[in-house]
Amino acid sequence: MTVNQHIYALRIQIEDTDYLGMAYHANYLRYMERARSEWFDSLGMGMSWQQEHGIGFVVHSAHLNFISPARLADKVEVVSEVRQMKPASIVFAQHLRLAGDNPRILFRAEIKIACVNAALEPVAYQRMPVLETIRRTLT
Amino acid sequence: MTVNQHIYALRIQIEDTDYLGMAYHANYLRYMERARSEWFDSLGMGMSWQQEHGIGFVVHSAHLNFISPARLADKVEVVSEVRQMKPASIVFAQHLRLAGDNPRILFRAEIKIACVNAALEPVAYQRMPVLETIRRTLT
Amino acid sequence: MTVNQHIYALRIQIEDTDYLGMAYHANYLRYMERARSEWFDSLGMGMSWQQEHGIGFVVHSAHLNFISPARLADKVEVVSEVRQMKPASIVFAQHLRLAGDNPRILFRAEIKIACVNAALEPVAYQRMPVLETIRRTLT
Amino acid sequence: MTVNQHIYALRIQIEDTDYLGMAYHANYLRYMERARSEWFDSLGMGMSWQQEHGIGFVVHSAHLNFISPARLADKVEVVSEVRQMKPASIVFAQHLRLAGDNPRILFRAEIKIACVNAALEPVAYQRMPVLETIRRTLT
Repeated sequence: MTVNQHIYALRIQIEDTDYLGMAYHANYLRYMERARSEWFDSLGMGMSWQQEHGIGFVVHSAHLNFISPARLADKVEVVSEVRQMKPASIVFAQHLRLAGDNPRILFRAEIKIACVNAALEPVAYQRMPVLETIRRTLT
Repeated sequence: MTVNQHIYALRIQIEDTDYLGMAYHANYLRYMERARSEWFDSLGMGMSWQQEHGIGFVVHSAHLNFISPARLADKVEVVSEVRQMKPASIVFAQHLRLAGDNPRILFRAEIKIACVNAALEPVAYQRMPVLETIRRTLT
Repeated sequence: MTVNQHIYALRIQIEDTDYLGMAYHANYLRYMERARSEWFDSLGMGMSWQQEHGIGFVVHSAHLNFISPARLADKVEVVSEVRQMKPASIVFAQHLRLAGDNPRILFRAEIKIACVNAALEPVAYQRMPVLETIRRTLT
Repeated sequence: MTVNQHIYALRIQIEDTDYLGMAYHANYLRYMERARSEWFDSLGMGMSWQQEHGIGFVVHSAHLNFISPARLADKVEVVSEVRQMKPASIVFAQHLRLAGDNPRILFRAEIKIACVNAALEPVAYQRMPVLETIRRTLT
């Protein structure tokens, strides 16, 4: 695992399913965000840091590909990496895969998040040293 | 329909269902709140009124009875009435029933909401005249 | 309003909001689907029709643009049109706008849905006459 | 920790919050269910076991007390125990508390779940040996 990769494990719960017995499509956006939040947290850029700095991160745009359904009780992983980093935004490439020996990819997303202040206006965020390390790995 | 009764119609959406093909149980609390919000709104106590007064209403406690499942695409109604009114809280009796000629009751709830300020501390709310009219109908 | 346009009204509920006071981003996918479901229903292709035919519609891919936040109690509208129609899939262009005199667009999406059977395999769906009428309007 | 106690840790995510910055009240029911699901799973009565036996567990009734709000990024724990066990139902006492040195209780629930077959009719479930052990601890 490189500095520019984060893995977040979760399980598909009853609350996540729909009448077809699979994870409801809108919930994948939640899983992606949970993974990003945990990554930010582990980088020292979690909620308390954001609130100290009077900022938040909001989703600006997203491209989503639903490849194969995640089903009730499936153990899955969100794999995240930073694709692009700008002063007030970050683009993530993320995918969801089955955990275990046969990690089939079920879903892919490219998600651009923007840093905003309390008035929801875009602002630059402070680049923590580790984020700078990640940025230097980007071509 | 008396002054102390409100009816709110909704339809069970795909997003509401779970793997058993019925409305996921936690969602009934959402339906109850949508109904109360619309009632408050129609009484002139909607969100803009609440924000002017620096208050909000939060759920304090609830008794829930799941009688029969609501299913995908069912047209249902939430019937609400005030059961008790105190300076900083209101108890609602609410139920969900199928719409139409055979309005079978699917769910019943008794829900106590509390009025809070921005610090989430209990505060008395101003009783709008119509609320006072409702209060006088309570025994 | 042409045959290839559908408008669905909704209101941002407390359940829809997040800590920033705006509609949580994943919920926009729910709004888009509610609108498509109601359109399908009005075209005679609702849930009972789908279940008779042993089919369902699932989201295949989506491009989402979050332009401006929808906030608590906002009255909004989802405007939907069909962009492309294939034997086993439909592409929708949808947007969410504020209702009223100043219908500012808050969100845009292009969403491809696929028709699947009970095993979640792609299958062709029967084109209802009205759907054929819509298809003929596409260039 | 006795045989009749289960602890499930979770974190309040952005998706869980509402405009007041706290966990939306309906989500507590989700947390309670996640905890029960994980407990069932660890007892060998998880989803694959339920599907083998053609059964599912649904919420029959619930008493909920919202004591103090859980807030964004809070680390919390659901503590569950069985209160009563009957052939086709189980009553759980559950609460949610802050994790860490000062485990303040934020929410309490008593939730009765019923075992149902595919037609959502009540049926007796097979008592796994460990469940029998739990039952014998009940007075």
